[in-house]
Amino acid sequence: MPELRKDPVTGRWVIIATERARRPNQYVKIEEERKGGFCPFCPGNENTTPPEVLSYRAKDSLPNSEGWWVRVVPNKFPALQPEGELKRSAHGIYDRMTGIGRHEVLIESPSHENTYADLPEHQIEEILWAFRDRTVELRKDRRMRYIMIFKNWGHEAGASIEHPHSQIIALPVVPKRVQEELHGASKYYDFRERCVYCDMIHQETADNVRTIVENDTFISFLPFAGRFPFETWIVPRLHSAFFSDIQKNEVVDLARILKETLSLLKRALNDPPYNFVIHTTPFESDAGTEAYHWHIEIMPKLTKVAGFEWGSGFYINPTPPETAAEFLRKLAARSGADVAEGGQIVAALG
Amino acid sequence: MPELRKDPVTGRWVIIATERARRPNQYVKIEEERKGGFCPFCPGNENTTPPEVLSYRAKDSLPNSEGWWVRVVPNKFPALQPEGELKRSAHGIYDRMTGIGRHEVLIESPSHENTYADLPEHQIEEILWAFRDRTVELRKDRRMRYIMIFKNWGHEAGASIEHPHSQIIALPVVPKRVQEELHGASKYYDFRERCVYCDMIHQETADNVRTIVENDTFISFLPFAGRFPFETWIVPRLHSAFFSDIQKNEVVDLARILKETLSLLKRALNDPPYNFVIHTTPFESDAGTEAYHWHIEIMPKLTKVAGFEWGSGFYINPTPPETAAEFLRKLAARSGADVAEGGQIVAALG
Repeated sequence: MPELRKDPVTGRWVIIATERARRPNQYVKIEEERKGGFCPFCPGNENTTPPEVLSYRAKDSLPNSEGWWVRVVPNKFPALQPEGELKRSAHGIYDRMTGIGRHEVLIESPSHENTYADLPEHQIEEILWAFRDRTVELRKDRRMRYIMIFKNWGHEAGASIEHPHSQIIALPVVPKRVQEELHGASKYYDFRERCVYCDMIHQETADNVRTIVENDTFISFLPFAGRFPFETWIVPRLHSAFFSDIQKNEVVDLARILKETLSLLKRALNDPPYNFVIHTTPFESDAGTEAYHWHIEIMPKLTKVAGFEWGSGFYINPTPPETAAEFLRKLAARSGADVAEGGQIVAALG
Repeated sequence: MPELRKDPVTGRWVIIATERARRPNQYVKIEEERKGGFCPFCPGNENTTPPEVLSYRAKDSLPNSEGWWVRVVPNKFPALQPEGELKRSAHGIYDRMTGIGRHEVLIESPSHENTYADLPEHQIEEILWAFRDRTVELRKDRRMRYIMIFKNWGHEAGASIEHPHSQIIALPVVPKRVQEELHGASKYYDFRERCVYCDMIHQETADNVRTIVENDTFISFLPFAGRFPFETWIVPRLHSAFFSDIQKNEVVDLARILKETLSLLKRALNDPPYNFVIHTTPFESDAGTEAYHWHIEIMPKLTKVAGFEWGSGFYINPTPPETAAEFLRKLAARSGADVAEGGQIVAALG
C-alpha cells in the first residue's frame, strides 16, 4: 500500500510509492519493451494494459479491442490505489495517510507519434471530453479531494512510454501548489473583490507583449513572472472555477488554442520535452468559486539548470517572457516553415 | 539591469535575468571553452575570472595569481547586480523590483576533479569557512535579506563549468521555500514551544532507520517525507538559527559528515548529479531565532520524471527513505569497494 506522508515543516504531502519501489524489474522491463518496438498503447495491444475505464470507440467494436480513438486505462504501476480505507495516523511527530487514490492513463489517439501539435483539432476535442468525463466520474468517490490532469511529453520530461498519453490522478489531498494558488487568489479577491486571473487577462490583452494566441474564449500568454523559459499559460477569458464546467463551444476553442500554442512551441524549440498541468479548483474549497480561475500551465523543459531552482523554490528565468513571446509571435506570423531558433535565446546559469 | 518579478497569485519572486538573455553567445562560448580543455577556474587562469573577493592563499602569493586553495570571485554572468538602487515599482497589477544583489562563485580547490567526496576534510573545512566569511561580509549590505549558498554538481544538475565550485547569491528577498519553512516552523513552535527540527533529530535518532551518518554535532538522515529518491539532510544536533554562527569545532564535524555523506551517495549511485542548498534563517526574521534551525538539503538528481512534480508542487518519491537509507547504511558497513547498485532500487513514473 503506498503511503502519503506530510512534511512536518511545510505541510506538503508527498506520495511515497512503496509498491513501485519493490518492482524495479517490472519498470525496467517496460523500458525494454518500448525499446524493442512493442507499444502497450498501440491498437491491437489492448490486452497488455489493465481493462479500460473509458473509451470512445466505434459502435460495433468491443471494449479492450481495436476501434477506439481515445482510451483511458488504470496505470499499470499506480502511484496510489483505489482499494482500502483512507486512514490517517501519526508516527511520532510525523503524519501519514494511506495511499488511497486513482491513477489513470489517457491514451490520446491510436497514433504512436502524434500529439497535440500534430493531431487534428477534433481529436483534441475528444481528449478534452475524456478529461472532463473522467473528472466527473472520479469526483463521485467522496474520499477524493482533487483531480490532477497532466501530461509528460518526451523522455526528459518524464514520459517513460513514447505513445502520446496524459495522466489523471485522483488525490485525497490538494497539492501544495494548488493550495498556494487558492490562498493567494483568495487574498487578492478579499482585497480587490476581483479574480486575479481575470485581472491578468485584462492586463495581458492591454499590454499585448506576452500574449501569443487568442480566440473567442481563450488566451495563451507567457506569464509576467514565469519560472521557466517559454513557460506558457492558457486561460479561459470568462471566469470559471472548474475545468469540468467547460462548455461545448469552449471545448472547440480550447482544442484550437492548445494545438496552436503547442505547435508554436514545437516549431520554436525543436519539439521540446514539456509538462502541462490543468489547474482547477478543488471540489470543496473554502475559497469559494469567485477567487480561483482554472487554467493550463505548460512548462517546456529547456534548461538543465533548473534542478537547483526547483529544489530550493527559487527561480531564475534566463529568458524574459517578452523576449520569448516576441519570438513566438514572429514565428506565428511567418509561414509554417520549420525553424528551431528559440533555443538560441535561452541562456543559462552554471 | 536584471529584474525581480512577483507572481501575482502565489507571491513568489522570480529573477528575470535580462542581462544574461542578451548574451547567449557568451554562454555558448564558455561551454565550448570547457569542451576545449580550457578551465577558467584552474590555477594559472586567475586572470580569466573577475577579480577575487576572497581567497585563502600562501602568504607570499599575490591576489589573482596562483597559490590559493580556496577562491571566491564574482560570477562572470551574474543573475543579479550590486550596482544601483533597490527600487520597487508597479506594472499594472504586477509588482517588480530592480535586480540588485550579488552572485559569487566559490572555487572549492585548485583540483579540477575533486569535490566533497574526494577532497581531504581539512580542505572542506576551508570551503566552509569561506562560506561563512562571505556570509558575514555580504550581510553588511543592508539592502540584502538573504544569503543563499548552494552547489550544482554535474551537468544534469546545472553545473555549466566542470571545475568543482559552489555559488553564493545575496538576495533582496527571501526565497519562497525558505519563507514556507519559516512559516511552518513558527506554527509548530507556537503550538508546541519546541523547534520542529530538534524534534526531528530526536525522532530520527530514536527510529534509527533513516539516519545514515552521525557524529558529535551533526546528523545526516533521509527525511520522512522526502521529495526525491535519496534526498538527504544534514542537521546540527544543537539548535542554531544561523549557519554563520557555526562554531570552530562544528566546522570540523560538518566537513567530516559532508564528506562521509556525499561519499556514500557517490558510491551508491555512481557519482550522481546533485544539488545542495544551505537553508538558514534570514538576518531579520519575524520568526525569531527559536523556531528555525539551519541545515543542508542534498538532492540527487536521479529521476528524469521529476519535471512534472517540480512544476506542479506535487511530489511522488518512488523510493521510500527507509529503503534508500538501508542501502546506504549497508554500504557504509562494507569496505570501501566501489559499488553503484543504488540506482537499481529507484523505480520511476511515466
